[in-house]
Amino acid sequence: MKMHELAKRSEQSPVCLGLDVREAYLPEILKNDTGLSREEKIFQFNKEIILHTEEAVACYKVQIACYEALGLEGLRAYAKTLQFARERGNIVIADVKRGDIASTAGMYAQGHFSGDFESDIMTVNAYMGEDAITPYFPYMEEKGKGLFALLRTSNPSAVDFQELQTDKGALYLEVARKIEEWGSRLPREGQFNAIGAVVGLTAPEAFEEIQAAMPHTFFLVPGYGAQGGTGKDLARVLKKSRCMVVNSSRGLITAHQGVEEGAEFAKVIQAKTEAMREEILQWV
Amino acid sequence: MKMHELAKRSEQSPVCLGLDVREAYLPEILKNDTGLSREEKIFQFNKEIILHTEEAVACYKVQIACYEALGLEGLRAYAKTLQFARERGNIVIADVKRGDIASTAGMYAQGHFSGDFESDIMTVNAYMGEDAITPYFPYMEEKGKGLFALLRTSNPSAVDFQELQTDKGALYLEVARKIEEWGSRLPREGQFNAIGAVVGLTAPEAFEEIQAAMPHTFFLVPGYGAQGGTGKDLARVLKKSRCMVVNSSRGLITAHQGVEEGAEFAKVIQAKTEAMREEILQWV
Repeated sequence: MKMHELAKRSEQSPVCLGLDVREAYLPEILKNDTGLSREEKIFQFNKEIILHTEEAVACYKVQIACYEALGLEGLRAYAKTLQFARERGNIVIADVKRGDIASTAGMYAQGHFSGDFESDIMTVNAYMGEDAITPYFPYMEEKGKGLFALLRTSNPSAVDFQELQTDKGALYLEVARKIEEWGSRLPREGQFNAIGAVVGLTAPEAFEEIQAAMPHTFFLVPGYGAQGGTGKDLARVLKKSRCMVVNSSRGLITAHQGVEEGAEFAKVIQAKTEAMREEILQWV
Repeated sequence: MKMHELAKRSEQSPVCLGLDVREAYLPEILKNDTGLSREEKIFQFNKEIILHTEEAVACYKVQIACYEALGLEGLRAYAKTLQFARERGNIVIADVKRGDIASTAGMYAQGHFSGDFESDIMTVNAYMGEDAITPYFPYMEEKGKGLFALLRTSNPSAVDFQELQTDKGALYLEVARKIEEWGSRLPREGQFNAIGAVVGLTAPEAFEEIQAAMPHTFFLVPGYGAQGGTGKDLARVLKKSRCMVVNSSRGLITAHQGVEEGAEFAKVIQAKTEAMREEILQWV
């Protein structure tokens, strides 16, 4: 089961490297290579990053929006990136945040858990309730796949709905209870269910409350580095339980900008990734 | 502005035809055509449907999950379908339900409001709050594009979260107020804002309450035909205000199955689409 594997890998490194690639992030050596298509440039960038960082990370998260923005060409680069990373034994989280129901959700499951875009774990949105989650069950049961459901996000307007007080407490706590319950219906390997949750780093107290409500849920935590969070905020939680991977995207994959030109970009990103791992591990 | 155009077209026909195409829906004549790729079969099916129904509908809704399920090949058929429909002057709703924030939402906006996958209006998920909506503003202001935000969906587990009682009333009512407010920040043409809402047909009383809370919001209503709703449920709302398009997908695009073989499939779908339009219009 991928969620169990991810939890194990997170003990060596809790780093999730986000391949949220934009053209502006490409190093000069790729930008200026007139022999490569845009698709190839992006794939080459990702490939070099993966080759240099796979020993230092728990997994990769690929934000599909960056690739959808470039149309079919972008999605070809997306497909090649996922295939390359997975063939080398890496765990890939497809950050697609799909949210639909019943047979439509089943089509998303087919699309992102098999074929050109096959990933190991995908992010989903559960605003439509259980019907947005159960269509993924066959892939979790038969192929060991996993989900990360959006729970408490780290953006300023997360408060618009997620923090509304309901007759069952804050909305995000009710979402938390449901995610834990849905995940508990599936076979578990080790401590964690096949359904995890996305929880932002910006509210450490809320994080501890959430974790208490869902002891079998593994977390994907965005917000490290470029989005503002630091290792300190993680320490309290991680000391109690190694229950998360921490994502950094821009903070890692733009590390080469202004620092180094030429073919060394991937080594700069590698060093930054290793530094992030060490920074987090020193706290726990 | 596309939402204004859509509202005007809905007076002639409130029908939104859903091109939620699966391989199983293809007529025998296409299924058995060994000279066509899967991509071409699906595109030919959509093309014939569009050519036969564009006088009878307000718009088309294309469910991207059906195409993502087939990987890159499916997305090429998706792109061709949108381009074909739009070049002929039809309004196309991309049913993508994307839900992300800030610059990531901006990438989705770029992806679905320009380039290969350009649509006129796209569906979005606002669980993450205002940050999931404002990145689309430039496309609404500069290109006349529109959004339909998920509000009260028609699936059984919509109650899991959407109907929770908050300190501001039912969650869906707070979402309704926010959608109306966000839309009101943009220039308006006619009665309706550029941001509409998706509201299911399964709760007519809730629909009237919602509409009262958002008088400038146009609705996309799924649930007609195959999902169970009928013209009767719409009558009370439509008599007061022509504030919606009503989607049917499977109920229309499988009308040919078991009825007619050969090249006539599109005429059968046309007749079924015209019958749906007449059925709804007789009530209002």
